Amino acid sequence: MEAAKTIKSVRKLVKAARDKGKKIGFVPTMGALHIGHISLIKKAAKECDFVVVSVFVNPTQFGPGEDFKKYPRPFKSDLAICRKAGVDVVFAPSPQEMYKKENLTWVNVEKLTEPLCGRSRPGHFRGVATVCAKLFNIVTPDVAYFGQKDAQQAIVIKRMVADLNMPLKIVIYPTVRQADGLAESSRNKYLSEQQKKDATCIYKALKKSESLIRAGTTKSKTIIDEMKKVLNRVPSIEIEYISIVDAETLRNIEKITGKVLAVVAVKIGSTRLIDNIVVDAGKR
Amino acid sequence: MEAAKTIKSVRKLVKAARDKGKKIGFVPTMGALHIGHISLIKKAAKECDFVVVSVFVNPTQFGPGEDFKKYPRPFKSDLAICRKAGVDVVFAPSPQEMYKKENLTWVNVEKLTEPLCGRSRPGHFRGVATVCAKLFNIVTPDVAYFGQKDAQQAIVIKRMVADLNMPLKIVIYPTVRQADGLAESSRNKYLSEQQKKDATCIYKALKKSESLIRAGTTKSKTIIDEMKKVLNRVPSIEIEYISIVDAETLRNIEKITGKVLAVVAVKIGSTRLIDNIVVDAGKR
Repeated sequence: MEAAKTIKSVRKLVKAARDKGKKIGFVPTMGALHIGHISLIKKAAKECDFVVVSVFVNPTQFGPGEDFKKYPRPFKSDLAICRKAGVDVVFAPSPQEMYKKENLTWVNVEKLTEPLCGRSRPGHFRGVATVCAKLFNIVTPDVAYFGQKDAQQAIVIKRMVADLNMPLKIVIYPTVRQADGLAESSRNKYLSEQQKKDATCIYKALKKSESLIRAGTTKSKTIIDEMKKVLNRVPSIEIEYISIVDAETLRNIEKITGKVLAVVAVKIGSTRLIDNIVVDAGKR
Repeated sequence: MEAAKTIKSVRKLVKAARDKGKKIGFVPTMGALHIGHISLIKKAAKECDFVVVSVFVNPTQFGPGEDFKKYPRPFKSDLAICRKAGVDVVFAPSPQEMYKKENLTWVNVEKLTEPLCGRSRPGHFRGVATVCAKLFNIVTPDVAYFGQKDAQQAIVIKRMVADLNMPLKIVIYPTVRQADGLAESSRNKYLSEQQKKDATCIYKALKKSESLIRAGTTKSKTIIDEMKKVLNRVPSIEIEYISIVDAETLRNIEKITGKVLAVVAVKIGSTRLIDNIVVDAGKR
C-alpha cells in the first residue's frame, strides 16, 4: 500500500494502474475509519482492481461552530485499517494541498441541498459537492463508493455526477449498524457509554416508521408523531428533524406510496447524529 | 471526420483515440465558426493528435431577452470548416442531450464573474462554467483551447479548472482581427456594413489605451476618458463599460503597473460586442 500526500503523487499512482488496464475504485472519507468505511472499501476491492481511499477532513464542509477542529484524526490507525482491508493507495492531502489558493469555484446542487441537514448546516453540501468534484478530478476513478448513512449526501453526489456528466459511477452501500442498531459513524467517538445507549433510540424510531408503513399507515404525520414519541422517551435526545421524504427528490411526503426515506437528525449533548431507513410502501 | 450527436458516441470516439495513445485537444464552441475558431482548431491540431470541436449553443448561459433564439446556427458550413481545418470529431448535441433532466448542479466561480460582463449578464458565467465542466467531463481532453477575445470567460474557466483540479490544460489563444482591427466574433453577423465600420472604433479605443500606457500614463481614469472620447465619436455606439483591470483578478486598477487588461463592451444597435487588449506597462 502506498500513502500519497500530494495530488501529483496520487495521480501518478493511479495513472500507472490505469495504464495496466486496472479498474479504479475510490472511497472518499474524512478518516476516523469504522466498519462502515471498511464495508465500502471491501466492496470497492471486490468490484475494482485498484482501490484508492482518501482521508481528508474537508474544512469547506464545516460551518462556524461545527466540529472541524475536534473531528477525530487517528491517521496511523486509519492507515493500518486501509492496509488490512486491501487498499492500494491512501490519499491524505493537507488542506493547503487541496486548497492551494483562495477557493473561488463552488459546485452547488440546488433543491436537494435545501431541506433536512441543509437547513441546519448552510454551505455544508456545497463544501461536500465541491470537495468530491475535486477528489473525482484528482483520482479519476471508474467507481466511487458512498454510505447510505449519509443519505442526503449520497443523493446530492449522485445528482452532481449525473448533471455534470462526470465520467464515473456512484455506488451507494448500506449503512452498517452495531448489534443494538446504532449506525456506525466517526462521530460516535464523541459519545459516552450512556450516550451510546441513548442513541440506539434513533434506529428504534426508524424501525417504528418501517413497521407502521408496512402495517398500512400512509399518513406521514401519524408516523412522525409515533417516531417522536420513541425519541422523546430518552431525555438526552434533542430532535433536529424527523421527516418522511421522497427517496429521490427529498421532498416531504404527506401520503406514503412507493419508496420513501425516513430520516432523523438529533443532538445528544453536543454531538449531532443522523440516520435513515428506506421503506418501500409497495412491499408490505 | 465524425459527427457525434450523443454523449455516448463522442465518448466512444475519444476512448478509441486515447487507447491508441493519442493526445486529445478540444475546442468548445457555439458554432457559427469564424477565423478565430479556426485559429484555435489549428493550434489544437498542431499540439494534439486528435481534435474534438463541440458545437452547442448553450441555453443556460443566455439570459432572458438575450439572443439565444436568433444566435446563428449555420451547422452545415460549420461542419465544412471543421473538416477543412483537420478536426477529428464534431460533437453537436441537442439541448435535450446535454440537459437530460432539470439541471440542479451549477458551477459558480465567485468574484471573477461579478464585474464587467457579469454585471450586465447575471448567470451568464455560471452557465458557461457549468457547460464547460460538463463538456470537459464528456470529452475528457488533455488540452482545451479558448480565445482571448472573451477574456473574462478565459480567466473564469482557467480558475475553475485550477480550483476543481480538472485534469486538463487550458490554452488561451490570441484574438483574431480583421484588417481594420474588428475582432472576429460570431455576433459580427448581426452587423450591417455601416455597423461593421462603426465597430472598428472599439479596437481604436483599445489601441489608444495601449499607446497611452506605453507613453507612461499610469492613471486609469485618464486612459478611460480618452477611450471614451474615441468611442463617443461614433454616434451608433452605446458604451456598456470601459475598464482597466488586473489581468488575473479582473479588479479595477487605478494606478497602472505591470500587466493590465483594457476591456470594452458596447452595443451597436441591438448587438452587444466585447473586446480587450493586454498591455504590459512594464514594457514601454
